[in-house]
Amino acid sequence: MNQPFLYHPQTQDGLVREGDKLTIRLFAEQDKFESIKLRHEPDNEEYLVELSKVGTKGQLDIWQAALPLSADKDVTYYVFKALTATGQYWLDARGTHSRMPGREYHFKYNRADQPPSWVAEQVFYQIFPDRFCNGDPSIGVETGEYQYPNRNRESVKKQWGEPVGNHGSSGAVEFYGGDLAGIESKLDYLQDLGITTLYLNPIFTSYSNHKYDTVDYYSIDPKFGTNQQFAELADNLHQRGMKVVLDAVLNHTSVAHPWFDVLEASNGAYTSADSPYRDYYFFNGDSKQYVGWKGIDTLPVLNFHNEEVRDHIYRSKDSVIKHWLKPPYNIDGWRFDVIHMLGEGEGAANNAHYVRAFRESMKSVNPDSYMLGEHFFEATQWLQGDQEDGAMNYYGFAHPLRALLAGKDIAFDPINIDCHEFLSWLQEASAKVPWSNQLSQLNQLDSHDTERFITTLAGNDNRLAIALQLLMTYVGTPCLYYGVEVGLEGTHDPDNRRCFPWERVETSSWLPYCKQLISLRKASKALQRGSFVPLYVDEFSLVFARQLDDEVVISGFNLGTDAVQFSLPVWKLGLESARFECASTGSKSESIDGVLDVTIAAEGSLLLTH
Amino acid sequence: MNQPFLYHPQTQDGLVREGDKLTIRLFAEQDKFESIKLRHEPDNEEYLVELSKVGTKGQLDIWQAALPLSADKDVTYYVFKALTATGQYWLDARGTHSRMPGREYHFKYNRADQPPSWVAEQVFYQIFPDRFCNGDPSIGVETGEYQYPNRNRESVKKQWGEPVGNHGSSGAVEFYGGDLAGIESKLDYLQDLGITTLYLNPIFTSYSNHKYDTVDYYSIDPKFGTNQQFAELADNLHQRGMKVVLDAVLNHTSVAHPWFDVLEASNGAYTSADSPYRDYYFFNGDSKQYVGWKGIDTLPVLNFHNEEVRDHIYRSKDSVIKHWLKPPYNIDGWRFDVIHMLGEGEGAANNAHYVRAFRESMKSVNPDSYMLGEHFFEATQWLQGDQEDGAMNYYGFAHPLRALLAGKDIAFDPINIDCHEFLSWLQEASAKVPWSNQLSQLNQLDSHDTERFITTLAGNDNRLAIALQLLMTYVGTPCLYYGVEVGLEGTHDPDNRRCFPWERVETSSWLPYCKQLISLRKASKALQRGSFVPLYVDEFSLVFARQLDDEVVISGFNLGTDAVQFSLPVWKLGLESARFECASTGSKSESIDGVLDVTIAAEGSLLLTH
Repeated sequence: MNQPFLYHPQTQDGLVREGDKLTIRLFAEQDKFESIKLRHEPDNEEYLVELSKVGTKGQLDIWQAALPLSADKDVTYYVFKALTATGQYWLDARGTHSRMPGREYHFKYNRADQPPSWVAEQVFYQIFPDRFCNGDPSIGVETGEYQYPNRNRESVKKQWGEPVGNHGSSGAVEFYGGDLAGIESKLDYLQDLGITTLYLNPIFTSYSNHKYDTVDYYSIDPKFGTNQQFAELADNLHQRGMKVVLDAVLNHTSVAHPWFDVLEASNGAYTSADSPYRDYYFFNGDSKQYVGWKGIDTLPVLNFHNEEVRDHIYRSKDSVIKHWLKPPYNIDGWRFDVIHMLGEGEGAANNAHYVRAFRESMKSVNPDSYMLGEHFFEATQWLQGDQEDGAMNYYGFAHPLRALLAGKDIAFDPINIDCHEFLSWLQEASAKVPWSNQLSQLNQLDSHDTERFITTLAGNDNRLAIALQLLMTYVGTPCLYYGVEVGLEGTHDPDNRRCFPWERVETSSWLPYCKQLISLRKASKALQRGSFVPLYVDEFSLVFARQLDDEVVISGFNLGTDAVQFSLPVWKLGLESARFECASTGSKSESIDGVLDVTIAAEGSLLLTH
Repeated sequence: MNQPFLYHPQTQDGLVREGDKLTIRLFAEQDKFESIKLRHEPDNEEYLVELSKVGTKGQLDIWQAALPLSADKDVTYYVFKALTATGQYWLDARGTHSRMPGREYHFKYNRADQPPSWVAEQVFYQIFPDRFCNGDPSIGVETGEYQYPNRNRESVKKQWGEPVGNHGSSGAVEFYGGDLAGIESKLDYLQDLGITTLYLNPIFTSYSNHKYDTVDYYSIDPKFGTNQQFAELADNLHQRGMKVVLDAVLNHTSVAHPWFDVLEASNGAYTSADSPYRDYYFFNGDSKQYVGWKGIDTLPVLNFHNEEVRDHIYRSKDSVIKHWLKPPYNIDGWRFDVIHMLGEGEGAANNAHYVRAFRESMKSVNPDSYMLGEHFFEATQWLQGDQEDGAMNYYGFAHPLRALLAGKDIAFDPINIDCHEFLSWLQEASAKVPWSNQLSQLNQLDSHDTERFITTLAGNDNRLAIALQLLMTYVGTPCLYYGVEVGLEGTHDPDNRRCFPWERVETSSWLPYCKQLISLRKASKALQRGSFVPLYVDEFSLVFARQLDDEVVISGFNLGTDAVQFSLPVWKLGLESARFECASTGSKSESIDGVLDVTIAAEGSLLLTH
C-alpha cells in the first residue's frame, strides 16, 4: 500500500445527517494532501465541494464538508478526490484508487429507506424445524401417514439422529419430529448461547419436511404445532427480548394448495381451465401444462400480474405478509425465498415493482420489521435501500470464505484465491450496497442450502475457528445455522439438515468458543456497526479493525503453516500509544507511535480489543 | 498474465444471433480447460450452459454454446466460468479473473435496441462554425450589431486569426464570420482528408458565438446562412456519401427565446407570471427568479413535466427533434447537449424517461439516425441500448488518454497512471456498455469543451502522434476536432475555439499523418468493428490487436525514453506463421509458432496490418 492513507467512516464518526444535509468527515494521513474534494451528482452532473481541515486525531488530519442530499433521488452518490502536490487519489467505498472509480463503487446514502437499526445488534440462529428438537412426540408425522402430492412417495418417520435420506429417494418426505414445542424447550439453551433472533425455515402447512411448498399460508403445520402455539412462542421470545423471522415462500405454492388443487378436491386452477384461480398460475392455454419453479412440477409459480394474487399475498388487510406481522404473532421480519425470481412471468418481469410492494406491505404494519431476501448470488440491485433491508449474504461473505478457507466454490469446483483477492472480493461486494444495508446483511457460514462449513473444510477445526471469528467480527449481522455450535457435520442438501445432536452439548469445545465470540459481538458496538479498516494483508494473512468512536476491535488470521509477526499501523485508527487486550488469553500489548507488533500462530487468529 | 488465455469476441466471430438465440463462441488456450460454462440469468437466477469444443484455430480451442436470449428483458447478461483440473477462471467483458466478477462487467446483449450500423464506419469531424471558414463575408456579425440579452455586452467583430478573448470579457460575443458557406467550400478538403460525417456545434439562431443558448429551434442563425442553405449543404453531403449530425440544446433555452422573453417583447414566461409559457420553466412563485443551468441566469432550464414543452421538443409531428430529421434537411443524427441533466426539476427527475422519449422520437422519423449524448463523465446508465446509441466518450477515451499521455485530468490536476492502469481504465469503462454501443461511442482527443490535446501535451508531437493512432485504432468511432489535422493549439474554452489556420494546410506534417491513419481506418473492418485483444502491456508500453475474421491490425506504443523489443503472442489471435506489414514504412515481418518479435522506438508507435 504505497498510496497515502484516506478513510471515510460511514458511521457516526464520519457521517451525520441533519435534515437534507450530511456532515461528512474524512480522515487522512497527516500533511499528505493539499486539497480534498467531495464529488457528487445532484442533477447527474459533477459538483465538487471542498473539504476543510477541522482537526487532527493522532497522525491523521480530519477533513470535513457539508453534502446536500440529492433532492429528487433517494440515493445520494459521492466520492472523494484528494490532491497531493504531484498526483491525485480517489476514495470510494472500497478504498483508495489512482483514478476516478466507476459509479457503482461510490459511497451511497439512501435518504428515504433505512433498515431497522435493531438488526445489526442481533445474533441470528437459523432453525430447520423438523431437525432441531422434538418437544411433542404426539404430533410427529407417521410412516405412510400421507403421500406427497403428485409424487409416488409416502411419508417416512425416522428416529432422531438416523442418517438422512437423499433427494432421489425419501429426502423431502422423511420426518424426524422436530416441532415448535422443541424450539420452545430450547430457548434457555439458545439464550445462554447468546442468540437474540431466531430465523425459522418454513413452518406453514405443507407435505414436505422443508415446507418450501406451502399448502396453507395461514396455518402452522399441525405436525409442528398450532397457530396458538406459535403465538405463544413468539410472545415468549419477545418477553425474553428476542425476535423471530419467518420464511415466506411466495414465488410458488404447493400443487396441493387449494388455489392449484392438483388433488382435484376443489375447483382449483389445475382441476379446471375455468377455475377462478386459473390465472393465479401460468398455464399453457387450456392444457394441464404449467410453469414450475426451475421446471419442477411440484412447485407451480404464482402469477403476480393477477390482481387477486397481489391482494392475497401482500395487498389486502389480512394478506399473508401482513397477517403474521400483526398480533397475536408480531413476527419481526420475513425472509423471502427466491425473491428475485417472482414477477409476472418466467423472466421475473417487473420483479422490482413487487419487491418494493412487499416492502411497503411489511412496513405498513411494522416500520421496524426486517425484510431479508434470499439470493445465492449478487443481490446489489435489491439492496439499494428501496427493496430489501438485507440479503442472505452468500455473495459477499459465505462464498468468499468458502473460496479462501476451503478452496471450493458453491458448486464444489476448485477455486484459488489469496488474502488480497479475498479482501477485494469482500470490499467490492459490500461497496455497491449502502452502508446501513451492509450492516443488515445476514452473514452465514452455511445454511440448509449449502454443505456445512466444517464438512467443506474436511474437518479442519483451525479454519472453522477462523471462519466463526470472521462471522462475528465482519461487517453484517451474524447468523449461526443450528448445530454449528456443536460442530455438526453434513454434506449438501439434505445431509446438511441432520438432527441436532443434543448429546454433544455437554462435550463440544465449539460451544464455549461460540459463546465467547457471541458475547464479544454483543458487547461491542464497534463489531455491530463500526467501520471496517484493513490494517494488514499479504498472501496468507489479513488483519482488519472495526471502529466506532473510541471503541476498536482488531480481528485477523494467518492461514500459513508458520506463525507470523507483523506491525499493525493502528495510527490509521487515530491511535498512538494504545493498549490492547487479547480476547481469548487476556494478555496485554501496547502500540508505540501508532504501531502495534503482533504475532499470529500458524493457521491461527488474532482478536484484540482496545 | 499467468492466467490461461480466454477470449470471446462479441463480433460475428463469436456471436451470431438467430431469432431468440445467440450462438456464442469462445477461444481458449489449447488443452488448458476441462470444461467451460456460460452463466446467464433468464429469471434473475443463475443458469449454466455447457460449452462444447467444436474445433481449433492455431493454438486455440474453439468452444461453443447456444444462449437463449432473456424473454422478458431487453438486455441479456452472460459470463463464462472455465475450469481447469485445479482451479477456475471467469471471463467477463474486461478479461479473465480468478472469481466471479460483478454483474456490471458481464457481457451484455441488447435484443431490442441496436445503434445504426453505419456509425462505426465513419470518421467524424467536429466543426465550431464561427471559427471554421468564412464563406460569405456579407453576413458576419458586426461590432455593436446587437447586445447580448441580459448582459451588458455588445457583439464584437474580429479578424480571422486574431487571438480569441475570454469568458470574463467578450468570450461569447466575439465573432469571426465562419458560416455554412465556409463549410460547404471546404467539403472537398474534408473529403480528401477522409472525413465522412460532420458534427456541427449549434447552428440555430442565438446571440452567442457558441449558440448553446437557442433563440429559435427552427431557424439557422442568419449569420451562418439560411435554412435553405443548410438543406443544400445536407444534400451536398449526402450526395457525397457523407452524413451530418447537429447539436441539440434542449435542456435550456436562451433568455431571448420567445417562450422566456427576457426582452419583454411578447407575453413570455419572464414577462408575466400569467404567461402561457410560464410553466415551461422553473420560476419561484410569481417572482422573476428562475432556475438557470448550473445557476447561470442566461440559460433558463426547460421543464419537461410540462406537456407543451414535450410536444414542442420531441412529441408533436413537427417537434424540434423530428423537424430536422425530415426533408429537406434529413440530418443523420443529433448530439444532445447535457442530456443527463434534463427532466422535471433541478435534480433531473425522471431523466431516463425523457431520454428514451427522445430516442423514440428520433427513431420514429429515421430508425437509422444516430443518437449521441454529451456526458463529461461516466455515462454507463445512458448507454445500455435503450437510451443513447453512443456518447461523447470523454470517460472511456479522452480522459484516460489525457491522464496517460499528459499526466493531467480534465480539471488540469496532476494524475499518474501507467499503461496497466490505462488498460484497466479503458476495459472497465467499455465493459459496462453493450458491444455495439462501444462501437458507436464517439471517441475524441479534444473538443470545444476541453483544452486542445497538443496544448495539453505541451507540444509533444510524439505523444500527439500516439494519441491520433489510438483514436483511429481503438474501439469506437473517431472524431477529429477541426484543426487537429494541422496541429491547431489552444488552451481551455474559449481559446480552444481558435480560427482554423488555413495557411497551415500547405505545410503541416500532421495532415498527411492524419490522412494515412484515416485511410487505414476506413479500409479496415477490423478497426471499425473488430474485437479488442491486448497482446502486451508493461509500465510504459501497450500493444493490442483489433480482429475481425481473417483481418488483424496490431496497434501499440512505447512511452519510454528507450526503444523496446518484445515478443507478441499472436497465437492468441489464432495465428501461427503470419505475415505483417508496417503501416508507415511498409516493412514486412513474420511470426513464428504464433510469436511475433517487434521493436518500438522511444516515444514511438507500432502499427501493423496482417
